[in-house]
Amino acid sequence: MLKNKIGTQACSIARSAAVIDDAWVLLILREAVFGSRRFGDFMAFTGAQPSVVSDRLKRLVDAGVLEQSLYDEHPPRYEYRLTEMGRDLQPVLMALTKWGDTHLDAGGGPPLVDTHTSCGHDTDPTVVCGHCAESLTSENVRSSVGLGADPDTVAQRADAVRRR
Amino acid sequence: MLKNKIGTQACSIARSAAVIDDAWVLLILREAVFGSRRFGDFMAFTGAQPSVVSDRLKRLVDAGVLEQSLYDEHPPRYEYRLTEMGRDLQPVLMALTKWGDTHLDAGGGPPLVDTHTSCGHDTDPTVVCGHCAESLTSENVRSSVGLGADPDTVAQRADAVRRR
Repeated sequence: MLKNKIGTQACSIARSAAVIDDAWVLLILREAVFGSRRFGDFMAFTGAQPSVVSDRLKRLVDAGVLEQSLYDEHPPRYEYRLTEMGRDLQPVLMALTKWGDTHLDAGGGPPLVDTHTSCGHDTDPTVVCGHCAESLTSENVRSSVGLGADPDTVAQRADAVRRR
Repeated sequence: MLKNKIGTQACSIARSAAVIDDAWVLLILREAVFGSRRFGDFMAFTGAQPSVVSDRLKRLVDAGVLEQSLYDEHPPRYEYRLTEMGRDLQPVLMALTKWGDTHLDAGGGPPLVDTHTSCGHDTDPTVVCGHCAESLTSENVRSSVGLGADPDTVAQRADAVRRR
């Protein structure tokens, strides 16, 4: 299967992965969350080449994560802001940041501290069950087939589980 | 900056992005969470070419996310299991899945339903403040410099914010 077909898999990880499909995209999103809107800032803070920044911004606009708006007419210049869909990625990025802080901090402590403005404490982002508020872990979650599943994939998986 | 230098940035998103640096890695991790351990299953369920599966499994072993163990000696065959570091990614993947379910389900409903076995309900994974348990959103979080920050980057960012 070609990489550009990943997004056609009936799977929300695959569809998300087709949007966030490389490290530069994650860095561009990080900068958008920090408030960068202009090409030069995205370039300076990600360390990416102009062609990379340009390509990733376009992809994120096409995916509906960023929206582009004209801020100067002569010459035309655009800025890029997170859409609602893009802002909804912020909690996901915070959970990922905590994983990085926990496992990849190189002993130096977290580079960045996120404060929850409502309570004034460090956010310590935690993924919990929306029903009972207990933390979700690999020990307490079971996956099953949903409405949007692809029947062929379901059959193939069931067969593999039987063979284990 | 070269892509392989992303992981040297003093930033937990960059360090995480250097591990989860393409869509195939996310699909391999999805399969590992679902219980795949063997090369053939990773290949069948991600749709990736053997060389891609082999490369990504090696990278994830090198990063400490998967561990490799011999399950057959003649010929030598290996299986791949999530380490504790790898299992800690599961909540992050669940939060990402919810984002995909919300914004990329193509109207067909979620392909997969995760059940929280402790309470018996759908997980509805929610990223909350570990201190007060309120949901974290782009509206209620403020970032500031942490112990592990790089002083040059901090100065550069402060300058950019002044110019906005």
